Amino acid sequence: MATKGLVTTEILAALTAIVGESYVFFDKENLTHYGHDETEKLLYLPEVVVKPRTSQEIASIMQLCNQHIIPVTPRGGGTGLSGGALPQLGGVLLSTERLNTIIEIDERNLQVTTEPGVITEVLQDAVKEKGLFYPPDPSSKGSCFIGGNIAENSGGPKAVKYGVVKDYVLNLEVVLPTGDIIWTGANVLKNVTGYNLTQLMVGSEGTLGIVTKIVLKLIPLPKFDLLMLVPFNDLEKASEAVSAIFRAGFTPSALELIEIDALMIVSKMVDSHAVPVTPDIAAHLIIEVDGNNMDVLMSEMEQIAELMVTYDGGEVFFADDAQQKAELWKLRRRAAEAVKSVGYTIEEDTVVPRAHLPALIKGVKALGKEYDFHAVCYGHAGDGNLHVRIHKEGIPNSFGNAEMNKALRALFELVYSLGGTISGEHGIGLIQKSYMDIVFKEANLNLMRGIKKVFDPNNILNAGKIFDSIA
Amino acid sequence: MATKGLVTTEILAALTAIVGESYVFFDKENLTHYGHDETEKLLYLPEVVVKPRTSQEIASIMQLCNQHIIPVTPRGGGTGLSGGALPQLGGVLLSTERLNTIIEIDERNLQVTTEPGVITEVLQDAVKEKGLFYPPDPSSKGSCFIGGNIAENSGGPKAVKYGVVKDYVLNLEVVLPTGDIIWTGANVLKNVTGYNLTQLMVGSEGTLGIVTKIVLKLIPLPKFDLLMLVPFNDLEKASEAVSAIFRAGFTPSALELIEIDALMIVSKMVDSHAVPVTPDIAAHLIIEVDGNNMDVLMSEMEQIAELMVTYDGGEVFFADDAQQKAELWKLRRRAAEAVKSVGYTIEEDTVVPRAHLPALIKGVKALGKEYDFHAVCYGHAGDGNLHVRIHKEGIPNSFGNAEMNKALRALFELVYSLGGTISGEHGIGLIQKSYMDIVFKEANLNLMRGIKKVFDPNNILNAGKIFDSIA
Repeated sequence: MATKGLVTTEILAALTAIVGESYVFFDKENLTHYGHDETEKLLYLPEVVVKPRTSQEIASIMQLCNQHIIPVTPRGGGTGLSGGALPQLGGVLLSTERLNTIIEIDERNLQVTTEPGVITEVLQDAVKEKGLFYPPDPSSKGSCFIGGNIAENSGGPKAVKYGVVKDYVLNLEVVLPTGDIIWTGANVLKNVTGYNLTQLMVGSEGTLGIVTKIVLKLIPLPKFDLLMLVPFNDLEKASEAVSAIFRAGFTPSALELIEIDALMIVSKMVDSHAVPVTPDIAAHLIIEVDGNNMDVLMSEMEQIAELMVTYDGGEVFFADDAQQKAELWKLRRRAAEAVKSVGYTIEEDTVVPRAHLPALIKGVKALGKEYDFHAVCYGHAGDGNLHVRIHKEGIPNSFGNAEMNKALRALFELVYSLGGTISGEHGIGLIQKSYMDIVFKEANLNLMRGIKKVFDPNNILNAGKIFDSIA
Repeated sequence: MATKGLVTTEILAALTAIVGESYVFFDKENLTHYGHDETEKLLYLPEVVVKPRTSQEIASIMQLCNQHIIPVTPRGGGTGLSGGALPQLGGVLLSTERLNTIIEIDERNLQVTTEPGVITEVLQDAVKEKGLFYPPDPSSKGSCFIGGNIAENSGGPKAVKYGVVKDYVLNLEVVLPTGDIIWTGANVLKNVTGYNLTQLMVGSEGTLGIVTKIVLKLIPLPKFDLLMLVPFNDLEKASEAVSAIFRAGFTPSALELIEIDALMIVSKMVDSHAVPVTPDIAAHLIIEVDGNNMDVLMSEMEQIAELMVTYDGGEVFFADDAQQKAELWKLRRRAAEAVKSVGYTIEEDTVVPRAHLPALIKGVKALGKEYDFHAVCYGHAGDGNLHVRIHKEGIPNSFGNAEMNKALRALFELVYSLGGTISGEHGIGLIQKSYMDIVFKEANLNLMRGIKKVFDPNNILNAGKIFDSIA
């Protein structure tokens, strides 16, 4: 494993020769900015920040760092929640922000080729103009990068119907830790030509290579969508209603759950009165359907609304127009930011088979009592993917805190016992790696470490993420 | 690399102790049966055939063979078209046919857990009874195994709307070449917990481990489908019409192309008069839509039919009832068998971005003239996945034939130049491995070889498939 203090003036000069002096930074302000992401309250300063523009420049940087065994941490939009972009070993912070061009929208083949530093929402909007749809959009879509989404196999609210990032990635240009540049696959919808390096890269959290070009599958943009909000007095009932919707044969385009505490906090933060919040409500389901036939959608929405009544759902609030829809989505999307701002700094990304959501929620509350923390839950209930935001007095970070680790270990053991796993869409990064033994045997971890070593023999690229060591 | 002649009487005794003497075979008839699959006219005898029943038995076999460096070739239904199940190094042929139980259909979570030796159609029918749908079904669905489908990342006609096998696999129990038994992931819809070993296994053609349990995602079964057949006088026009359908915003549940030669041969073989075959027709498109609202489907079908006229499509034939639909699908599904029976023994599994299908078809015909072979084409046009069946007088196998290799190299170079690759759904196996350099750099192949070595340090499991050597 590389150690700190390796970026000598000689290395700085070499980095400058590669990217130009306007794109090498080592002032305090920049190091601090690139020393944190959205994960808890963690900060690790890199020794230098570089901002290359091309795959070739990145290849040169990797060759240099591989030769001198200098840690390199790649970074996208810096919105990660598992510390994947934190340069905890110092060394070089490699920002992909200048690789920000959408290279081609191929309307004939329904594909887009893009660089990784494009903001997810910018990409979505660009393809939408052509009547096309790229569904995966994390809550941070306005600031996260598509490259970071690939690194973490992001999901977002549409995943329940349309799948996650991995379902859209056709081909990737990758700079390997050794400096080689490869394309992982081909721009085709079906491919079984050797091992699936494309899918291996997706979700590998920047530990196997740096993605420099991305070919994504697109689909026709659905013409209409309808959105409703259903209140429940009982959190478990709300979560039971979730799997009932699928069992009844519906596939909503979004099915989110948000606990009342979170909704109150975010409503206050954005000064919204869109949703009537009464003390008897425990949680809401946000349910969206989409498609090309409005009559069909109306009928689906009515049937789902009726079904919700049998789970003690309260009075349904239909979003009547684009503005109301936007307002509702804003509340959901900004929930994480809002609860973090009032002290819920620790976020876990639990995922279980969706029918076990009630048991998970019940367990989270019980663990809160046992370990003396307060949790608010929200997330992609339709996928069984529940974000658990934790507030514990005086403890802003779970990472490095023995007391929180014990509580989180209990949480992840519960998740595993329900057939789930420790991350649905945020990744393992830095802060979850000590829990990997709960869900994997040593044989699994050895395979992963072996793969890491094949790609990165000197362990220079985002080392110390996912696992501690590849030795 | 292991060599032949290693299955001594001592090893035989050890294998017998593991699986019981009723399940160890070394008579000529069995060796011959398990010495071929559906690939060309190739035959390679194993030294022994074993039929274990459990993961634990398979683990014991792998431990034994790993210790003695004996090649093991895993086998599913034996319907493969790339020689993935051919025991070309002799040794042990491990049939998964006794692992044939559907373990659980989980209606609450829309998942099925199955053993690998279940026939794909049996699995489809079992979940259909519960109102659920597992879409991927290769033409051989009546005899192929779900385990083989995982190994080859199979597709089939529904892939155009519903995706391929990789899009449904949530979790796999795998016996590693060392004998360790692992689960690759979790039974959840979203997962970014370490490297995606599940997706690495899918399409790895039995070279990284033996899949012993499979958890698949299911979706609600669409209530209705409509099917039509559209004749075209011009093959390229037919293929141009394909991408027009998607550009117009439709996503058919099947969009197949079949050249008239193939249709005539298969119609004759099954003695069908379902489709009027006239000499002026060059090819047909088979177009299916599915969904839950019949009015919507009727309207879609009409719009697509109108669109076909603008591409010089002829008189549309609508399949009126279940029997007509079944008849049409039988013609498509049995095309490979039919053309093979009259001498088209060589099949390539080309795939390109769908808009390049016309260029591919044109190129195939030109290459036929240049290299003196006759080709009939059919396949999953909606995916850009074209099966090219080749007949060349006196040359039943491409594998090991220098003349055919030259022609196929030209074909795959064309495919690559069109942004495509050499296998969409059949795999590389034995017969395509010498063309991998066309689509991959040495750096890619080195990564793949490195991964193989991590999983299978002694190179005993399906060695010599995908690449020649891992040294």
